[in-house]
This record gives sequence, structure tokens and C-alpha cells, in this order.
Amino acid sequence: MTKVVADISMSLDGYVTGPGADPANGLGDGGEPIHAWVFGGDPVDAAVLATQLDATGAVVMGRRLFDVVDGPHGWDDSIGYGAAEKQASTGPPVFVVTHNPPSSWRLGPRFTFVTSLTEAVASGRAAAGTKDVFIMGGGDVIRQAVLGRLADELRIHLSPVVMGAGTPLFSPSADADPLPLQQIDVQVSAYATHVTYRVAN
Amino acid sequence: MTKVVADISMSLDGYVTGPGADPANGLGDGGEPIHAWVFGGDPVDAAVLATQLDATGAVVMGRRLFDVVDGPHGWDDSIGYGAAEKQASTGPPVFVVTHNPPSSWRLGPRFTFVTSLTEAVASGRAAAGTKDVFIMGGGDVIRQAVLGRLADELRIHLSPVVMGAGTPLFSPSADADPLPLQQIDVQVSAYATHVTYRVAN
Repeated sequence: MTKVVADISMSLDGYVTGPGADPANGLGDGGEPIHAWVFGGDPVDAAVLATQLDATGAVVMGRRLFDVVDGPHGWDDSIGYGAAEKQASTGPPVFVVTHNPPSSWRLGPRFTFVTSLTEAVASGRAAAGTKDVFIMGGGDVIRQAVLGRLADELRIHLSPVVMGAGTPLFSPSADADPLPLQQIDVQVSAYATHVTYRVAN
Repeated sequence: MTKVVADISMSLDGYVTGPGADPANGLGDGGEPIHAWVFGGDPVDAAVLATQLDATGAVVMGRRLFDVVDGPHGWDDSIGYGAAEKQASTGPPVFVVTHNPPSSWRLGPRFTFVTSLTEAVASGRAAAGTKDVFIMGGGDVIRQAVLGRLADELRIHLSPVVMGAGTPLFSPSADADPLPLQQIDVQVSAYATHVTYRVAN
């Protein structure tokens, strides 16, 4: 059965990028350690990536993340979801949340632009078949998906770094009730702790 | 060899208490889920607690945490470090960082008041023998110990809850460089993920 999985790498102090993130600098200044586990070569990390790639039937992302992955330092044939030429017809469809869709873009026709996260998730569910909908960021989209209970699961790749600044995943919201999660899986590598939580609907 | 271990429970969004924490409400409003692992009965959690208790030769804490543990809902004979009567002579010494020491307090003579975290850690090292110095909070003291490299290790008990508000462990500090940590141990229970990091000195 299709699950909606919100998935993002986060520093111990809650940042998903360093400061100054923009399309040409997707990780932000000094943000590489947040994603170091992707490139460390640990077999646990490789299995985490391979498993999520295999399970993904559709991808959801925000406009700023789209600008990064469609930008000059973005997706290419070496990155699973992004292999633009190779996967133009066979890769999972990607739904981008934006009120300001681009008139043209580098990556292929797999990309669809929709105006709300709710619509993106619904379109992803319809397109994913028996696979999962993978919400890959940025931080705003992940936070909205979790706090709005649009995600069934939240997977945090917790990286061993205190950033001190950057793009926070969560932000103070004094009027919100605490949201309890159920920890359902933890994978440990040399470079990160991958924790999957169930989000109550 | 004595290590200085900063140890604290934290929500996924980085809070160590709920909002409104004070001496009579040490966990803050709705803060119980941050510490639920202590009371869940999972043997992994029990072993984490027993191991740290056995390893502790001295305790360091801040003044606000002291007010909680010395307060009416604070430490009693059922809590390891706090068994006031039982451990008045045999429990580990506790060094409290404050410029405003109390003239009297409920708990025993194991408590010493010092004016800086550096002094507290040095006193703890001198008192701990071959055991460890355990920095138990609150958030300000843990953060200062880690960012100031006074702690050799940081142990985070990561609890499955998004609080939305409360006492943050880390706070934005735009002028700080990222602090890389080395993840050296992870213990997983049904209720928390316990991650220990080495802090470079």
C-alpha cells in the first residue's frame, strides 16, 4: 500500500542546509556535513538510499528545491531520481509545489507543477502505483507535510554536526500542540542515524 | 580515564523542556514525552540509565536545573543521583554553576556551588576519580559545554515528539562555525534513540 514518506537530512541542531542556500548553493555555506552520509561509502547508508529509491513511485518537492535540482549543480545521471536523460520516461514523476511555475526547465517532462502540497501529495498517490510517495524537501515542505499530517512517515537522516545557522526544519510555533511520533525504525551507520517515525493521521 | 559527558533528552525539534518550565514544572507544559523513555520500561533504556549511573563520579548542572531537582517535585530516593538521604555521603558530588548560591537547600551536603562551568567541570574532574563527569543540564549548560569543548562527549536521548515550543538546546548563532561531531554509539529502544557523539577538543 502506498505510503507518503517525508525524508530529509538534518543536523543535530535541526538545520537542513547551512546559511546562504540558493539554487547554485543548495546545501548552503558549510552544509556539506549534513549530507556527508550520502557520500561516505558506508554500506548501511547505501542500503538506506537504495531502499528508498526502489520504494519511490512519485516524488514531491518545493519550488526552491526544484530550482536546486534543476540548476547547474543539480541532478544528473549519477543521482537516482535525477537521471534526466536516462529516466525521462522511466523515472518516477515529480510534483513541484509552486504558485510560480517555470516556463521552461532543464530536466525532463517528468516534472509537473501544482499549487498546493495537498494537491502534490494527491497527485503523487495517484501516480505512485503500489510504491511510495517520497517528499524530499525542502524544509518548509517537509514541516508542512508532517504537521499537516499529509505524511504517513517522517524519516530523518540525523547527521553528526551542530551547524549553528542555516535553514531550520522546524520552527517555534507557540500555539501548536506537541506532535507525538512513533519511532518505527532506526538504521545506524558510521556517518548518520536514520530514524523513521510514523505520523498519526 | 575520566571523560566529561554532556547528557540530555531532546525532542526531534530540539527542545529539552516544554514551554513554561520552572522549578515546580521542570519538564515544562507538555514536556513529558521528551523524557518518556526514562519511564517506559524498555530494557535498552534501563541499561542506558544504569550504565550512566555506574559511570558517574561527579555531576555538573546549572542553577535552574538545581532548583528543579531541589524543589518539591525534584529528586528523591527513587532517582539514582538524587537519593538525598541514602546517598548523602555515598552519592556522587554535584557541582552547581551559579552566581547566586542558595543559603539553604533541601538536598544534602553533596552539593557545591561554583561560579563558572569551567570551574564546575574542573572540580568534577578532581572529584570523579576514575569515573566520568556527568553534565546533566539544563540546555544552556549542555550547549556551553559542547560549544566550549568542555565536554568530551555529548549524549542525546532523542525522543519521538515535535514540541513546537519550549527550551531549545541549541540556538542560532550566525557567527559560529559548524561543529562537526563524531557519532560513536547509538542505542535504540522502543521510546528513544540514544546517540553518543565525541566532541573534538
